[in-house]
Amino acid sequence: MPGRYFEDYAVGQKFGSGTVTVTADRIKSFAREFDPQPFHTDEELARSTFFQGLVASGWHTASLTMSLVVQAFPIAGGVIGGGVDELRWPKPLRPGDELRLEGGIVEVRPSRSKPGQGLVRVRTTTLNRAGKAVQIMIANLVVPRRPAERA
Amino acid sequence: MPGRYFEDYAVGQKFGSGTVTVTADRIKSFAREFDPQPFHTDEELARSTFFQGLVASGWHTASLTMSLVVQAFPIAGGVIGGGVDELRWPKPLRPGDELRLEGGIVEVRPSRSKPGQGLVRVRTTTLNRAGKAVQIMIANLVVPRRPAERA
Repeated sequence: MPGRYFEDYAVGQKFGSGTVTVTADRIKSFAREFDPQPFHTDEELARSTFFQGLVASGWHTASLTMSLVVQAFPIAGGVIGGGVDELRWPKPLRPGDELRLEGGIVEVRPSRSKPGQGLVRVRTTTLNRAGKAVQIMIANLVVPRRPAERA
Repeated sequence: MPGRYFEDYAVGQKFGSGTVTVTADRIKSFAREFDPQPFHTDEELARSTFFQGLVASGWHTASLTMSLVVQAFPIAGGVIGGGVDELRWPKPLRPGDELRLEGGIVEVRPSRSKPGQGLVRVRTTTLNRAGKAVQIMIANLVVPRRPAERA
């Protein structure tokens, strides 16, 4: 699989992504499977809740964000999640919203235990069409080192 | 909507859940939509990757975990996610795995800014049939206070 290696990343690099749009039907079907609460599954019931209307599950927002992360990080061998240190949903994702990703690299370091890998720490913001953040995440991606440069 | 309030939770309480099972077909269809990488979308290609076989997207594991959290926390008005402070996938979720949740409450505190709400901090472990952790999460749930006890 072609793609980038640990050595291609550096602190301070910025990145963006394409866009992805979410429909009311997909918000509801995702929620019926994974997060069956009225503000995610039923427009009528949602009106009388905290959110005053239908909103996507935070896990739907996170999953859509992953689809943008995969675009933004064409890492050789794939994006292997090394874990998330912060995940926030400052505003809910609503039907018809179009999402895009903005992010930056905040740390890079070789793995202590695995000579063929490094960690790339990223901060991502998922923005709606109005430019408001619907998700902020700090995550550590496990990235392979370029084979020729391994110890 | 009936359910529990902030006042019903206390530090040290433990909780469990029912189970949910994942198929290879659902692992692949979830990944085609949200995390289209070979180790999530194709058994053949997955064999030659880091994971040596098909595994679920971490966001699929997280979404399935949410379906168990909703069962375990019948909160009045719904589980409004206040954010995640740690999310780890120590082992991958594989086709046929059956998941269940174990968790505990590690902190409860009234909201400083919103008198009708409190925060319940939980640590959850999502276990496969072999009893191995496929996800560990520390999350803050926003929970309504019982109306009669509001200031």
